[in-house]
Amino acid sequence: MITKISHLGIAVKNLKSAAEIYSKLLQSEPSKPEYVAEQKVNVVKFKIGESTIELLEGTSADSPISKFIEKRGEGIHHIAYESNDIRADLKSLGENGFELINKEPVAGSDNMLIAFINPKSIGGVLSEICKH
Amino acid sequence: MITKISHLGIAVKNLKSAAEIYSKLLQSEPSKPEYVAEQKVNVVKFKIGESTIELLEGTSADSPISKFIEKRGEGIHHIAYESNDIRADLKSLGENGFELINKEPVAGSDNMLIAFINPKSIGGVLSEICKH
Repeated sequence: MITKISHLGIAVKNLKSAAEIYSKLLQSEPSKPEYVAEQKVNVVKFKIGESTIELLEGTSADSPISKFIEKRGEGIHHIAYESNDIRADLKSLGENGFELINKEPVAGSDNMLIAFINPKSIGGVLSEICKH
Repeated sequence: MITKISHLGIAVKNLKSAAEIYSKLLQSEPSKPEYVAEQKVNVVKFKIGESTIELLEGTSADSPISKFIEKRGEGIHHIAYESNDIRADLKSLGENGFELINKEPVAGSDNMLIAFINPKSIGGVLSEICKH
C-alpha cells in the first residue's frame, strides 16, 4: 500500500546554489551531499514534515538528470511514493496496466528499495515507489 | 514556518481518465470534482499521508493549466508548502530575495490562503505557500 509522499526529486544545474535557495525557502539545513553512483548524481535532502525534498545534480552528461535538464530545463524530475510492501505494490501496478521500468525493486540511496514507473503510464509524471 | 508539503498540483488533459489512473496508482478514491473559477480549472484531490495530490484540468484555453500543457505537456505544475503563518513567511521570503507573484495571500480552494512564488526564484519550480 502507498502510505505517503516519500520525496520529490528536483533536477538542478548547480547543487550548491540550489541548496542555498531551498535553505531559505524551507528555513532548514540540507543533509550532507551524497553521491549516488547508479544515477550519476550528487544529492542533498531537506526534511519537510513526513516527506523529503531531494535536489539532484548530474555529475556527467549521460546522467539521467543532466539529460532531463538538457531536454526540459531545471524542475521537478519525479515523485516518489512510500510503499509498505513494494513487491506487492509492483505486482498490483503491473496487473493494473502500469508499465514498470523496474519490475523488481533495485537499491536506492539510504538503503531504500526503489522502482520506477514509466511516465507514459501516468500522464508524463515519472513516478517511483520506494520502501525504506 | 513551512511545516509540510501541502499538495502537488499536476496538470492533466483529461480529468476523468487521469483520476482513474491515480485511483489505481494510489489505491484510493478521489474527492468530488471541484471548479476553481480563479484558475479556470476543474480539480480532484487524492489524500496521501499528510499531503494531497491535486489533478488540474484547464476549462478554457486561457487557463494557466491549459497554457502550461500547451508549452510543456502534461506533468507536475507546482509544489505547495503548508505555512503556519503565511504573512510572516511571505515577508521573510521577500526579504530573502524571492520574487513573489502574490505579495499578499489570496483565496484558494477549501478556504485556503495561498500565494505563489515566481519559478525564476526557485530553479524553474513554481512554488506556492498556503495556509489552511
